[in-house]
Amino acid sequence: MMSATPTKYSFGMIGLGTMGRNLLLNLADHNVGVAGYDKDPGKITLLAEEGAGKPVQGFTDLTQFIDSIQTPRSIMLLVPAGKIVDSVIEELRPLLAPGDIVIDGGNSHFSDTTRRAAVLREAGFHFFGMGISGGEEGARFGPSMMPGGDKLAYQVMQPMFEAIAARVNDEPCVTYIGPGAAGHFVKMVHNGIEYGLMQLIAETYEVMKRGAGLDNAAIGEVFAQWNAGRLQSFLLDITKDIFAFRAPHTDHLLLDDIKDEARSKGTGMWTSQVAMELEVPVPTIDTAVAMRNLSKYKGLREQLATLYSNPAPATSAAMERGAFLSNLEQAFYFSMVVTYAQGMHLLAKASAAYEYNLQLADIAKIWRGGCIIRSSFLNDIFNAYQQNPGLEHLLLDAQVAAVVNEAVPGTRQIVAAAVAGGISLPAYAASLSYFESFRSARLPSNLIQAQRDYFGAHTYELIGHEGVFHTQWTPVHEDAANKQSVQEDPEKRTEEPVIPNK
Amino acid sequence: MMSATPTKYSFGMIGLGTMGRNLLLNLADHNVGVAGYDKDPGKITLLAEEGAGKPVQGFTDLTQFIDSIQTPRSIMLLVPAGKIVDSVIEELRPLLAPGDIVIDGGNSHFSDTTRRAAVLREAGFHFFGMGISGGEEGARFGPSMMPGGDKLAYQVMQPMFEAIAARVNDEPCVTYIGPGAAGHFVKMVHNGIEYGLMQLIAETYEVMKRGAGLDNAAIGEVFAQWNAGRLQSFLLDITKDIFAFRAPHTDHLLLDDIKDEARSKGTGMWTSQVAMELEVPVPTIDTAVAMRNLSKYKGLREQLATLYSNPAPATSAAMERGAFLSNLEQAFYFSMVVTYAQGMHLLAKASAAYEYNLQLADIAKIWRGGCIIRSSFLNDIFNAYQQNPGLEHLLLDAQVAAVVNEAVPGTRQIVAAAVAGGISLPAYAASLSYFESFRSARLPSNLIQAQRDYFGAHTYELIGHEGVFHTQWTPVHEDAANKQSVQEDPEKRTEEPVIPNK
Repeated sequence: MMSATPTKYSFGMIGLGTMGRNLLLNLADHNVGVAGYDKDPGKITLLAEEGAGKPVQGFTDLTQFIDSIQTPRSIMLLVPAGKIVDSVIEELRPLLAPGDIVIDGGNSHFSDTTRRAAVLREAGFHFFGMGISGGEEGARFGPSMMPGGDKLAYQVMQPMFEAIAARVNDEPCVTYIGPGAAGHFVKMVHNGIEYGLMQLIAETYEVMKRGAGLDNAAIGEVFAQWNAGRLQSFLLDITKDIFAFRAPHTDHLLLDDIKDEARSKGTGMWTSQVAMELEVPVPTIDTAVAMRNLSKYKGLREQLATLYSNPAPATSAAMERGAFLSNLEQAFYFSMVVTYAQGMHLLAKASAAYEYNLQLADIAKIWRGGCIIRSSFLNDIFNAYQQNPGLEHLLLDAQVAAVVNEAVPGTRQIVAAAVAGGISLPAYAASLSYFESFRSARLPSNLIQAQRDYFGAHTYELIGHEGVFHTQWTPVHEDAANKQSVQEDPEKRTEEPVIPNK
Repeated sequence: MMSATPTKYSFGMIGLGTMGRNLLLNLADHNVGVAGYDKDPGKITLLAEEGAGKPVQGFTDLTQFIDSIQTPRSIMLLVPAGKIVDSVIEELRPLLAPGDIVIDGGNSHFSDTTRRAAVLREAGFHFFGMGISGGEEGARFGPSMMPGGDKLAYQVMQPMFEAIAARVNDEPCVTYIGPGAAGHFVKMVHNGIEYGLMQLIAETYEVMKRGAGLDNAAIGEVFAQWNAGRLQSFLLDITKDIFAFRAPHTDHLLLDDIKDEARSKGTGMWTSQVAMELEVPVPTIDTAVAMRNLSKYKGLREQLATLYSNPAPATSAAMERGAFLSNLEQAFYFSMVVTYAQGMHLLAKASAAYEYNLQLADIAKIWRGGCIIRSSFLNDIFNAYQQNPGLEHLLLDAQVAAVVNEAVPGTRQIVAAAVAGGISLPAYAASLSYFESFRSARLPSNLIQAQRDYFGAHTYELIGHEGVFHTQWTPVHEDAANKQSVQEDPEKRTEEPVIPNK
């Protein structure tokens, strides 16, 4: 740590986009002397302007940048995920000394982080992947940070990161997440939850506008009211602002001019893809990813709109406005809980599968400030996992159950009315379906097992019996088949090569 | 081709599970002398028993098996997807001669097939991946086959495969699909559609049973009736059989004893994962995958069932039985169309992305017989793409639109009633959401773009303007921001490293 113009800086940043610059300025505000590197001289100028009077210096020469940092060095990469991270690491390696710490602060896929950690450890460097959430504002004044991997290296960095992190109840929103790529994994799931919550807010806007005929002012008022109560969250907070922001030199909302095609950078998709690998259902997140993709087919949607007529909205007809808004608040609360629950469930299963030893209470704790999904409800999640660190599913928590049970009737009313009225609420509907299915001791999936066994001899299990079974279902052989429907030796069954025969 | 005991066989099969044996017997029935290889002597015995009197011989010695086949050899692998395929190919390579044809007939991931094709072509062999659908019965008496890759090699095999394929209107259900891994890709999407349709049938069972209180006999009757009309399909056909199949020595259905945990082998998951990569929404398939996974948490579901009470079903209360069943038939038809449409849309986009040059009419044509998703409706799909090979989306077809428009009101009623009654119909709901969203010229995704730009400076597009824009949304700077909300140079914006800063 230093206070004036240093000869050597304590921390270096590669990649001086808004996030990189803002993190450096944040560190400098806490008296850390920092160096930044970017190929683009324009970024160096911006850094110099924004950091005037602070212990900050920018470089366009990588060697000079590296030489300006105290050894053992602490260097963070904030560059686009993927091949660029690898190429920067390759450029960097010959310039580093053993013992240097390299931090990937970007949104790298956790499998890349696992691979890079092994390579860099082998080469004598300390590497850790750290998820950073909070956007520009968070980076500048206090992000939530999710470091994982080399624990000793993290401990070296800990005072610096705790100084710049967001704070809740005077505790910093950063903690060691776990070994390997645990930090990037948890950040990925954070983003998956973010996709789900953003889609829910968009659908809330849709049902208020198309379903109930509310104007922008009334919709903004609802978001502002919600944000003042139990639904308080960063995403509702910025949504309320968006509903107050007029297009330059006009009296209508800028929002109304923005094209309805939602872009994405992949972290939501990764969450869904990995959840499928781990056999964890996260349908609200899947739906949010699918809906971003669907939105991109603007031309096709316009064509389909001419073929399929839009019925008059029935939501408002079916419900008085006060009841509608009260039900909608319940539905949003319910779906928000379900979205977080899906993410936490995925974390629990991933922790077991990848041996991350995740402490879900700690994760909820550092998500309460600085990050995009921070919300009042994260306190409830924190409490649930603190009381029961092994909680299998958030919906098993008694306090959560009490509030969810109260919110279910209103949720059903909103979704049913929207469906009847031809209003699309995909993420609401997916959240409700998930809940109704998960609270079903009995599902119709026995029929799927029967079908799979019928056409592919994939076998099935019986209630109250060990082992797997196969039946010759074809009705022409029915009598013989009934006699032959015997229990197979499960050992034998698994030894037999399973021919992919669908 | 040969008719008696041959000295050399025309075709060899590696992997003598049910599918492998049945394909060999099918070939032998068409006077092709065939050899089979399996490490397991039990499989050789089964092949000998089932193939008594036919030109069929089994081997447990790989060299003897290879030597028994006419050169240039035609050898198919039917072994579990994944590493086993690679290890079998490694074992096989030193025994093969240049010019030999190797066919992977299993459910390999298309990216593995792309990789293997390159390696084997390099080594002088002809390789092609071929999806085979139809289960045991199809393999034995006529499957649907989707070969892709080395076209000359396929043409050598064509007479043999056309002889054993299922036939519709006297045309064989096999055709060259396209270069590279096109065959396995199309088979993967076939299976994704299969997941969707099976989940829809399971939910239909659920809503009839829990929603409307129908008993198994009545439910079986509905499936049988549907299968006799426009909904005719292989999957409904076997479902009707399952609803007639009693547990041995009892008078209740075997179905009632089967555990409600649905297993899966990964092809549905792959479809969803790849669709996300290609930015194609396939939410019905995503939902089917998620629901199979959810079903596996039987213990957790039983716990949650005690915390969340099950309301009385309201579906039957809200609808008279005749209307309910008529609406349900519409809803099933609608959701089936949407499921196929999602799969076809994925094929169209993948064809462009991977340069597969897929002929969607041909694919619909060979799916009409032999395979698991064969159905009367595939004729409509065939007609749609034959009339317009460049059709962007199946829902744009005028005849499809006419029937879908008719089915929408009943679908909305069923889904709304189920939602209100606490019955979970995730795939129905996802299909309806997909439709309602895709027919929306305007979606609420503009809000998502505004949020992304607010917290991450991810930019947005404006309706009726070129380029991308960024706004400083924070209300404290509102006046200044309004003035600064200028169009950015899109070139500059894309050149700027996009820092993953969520």
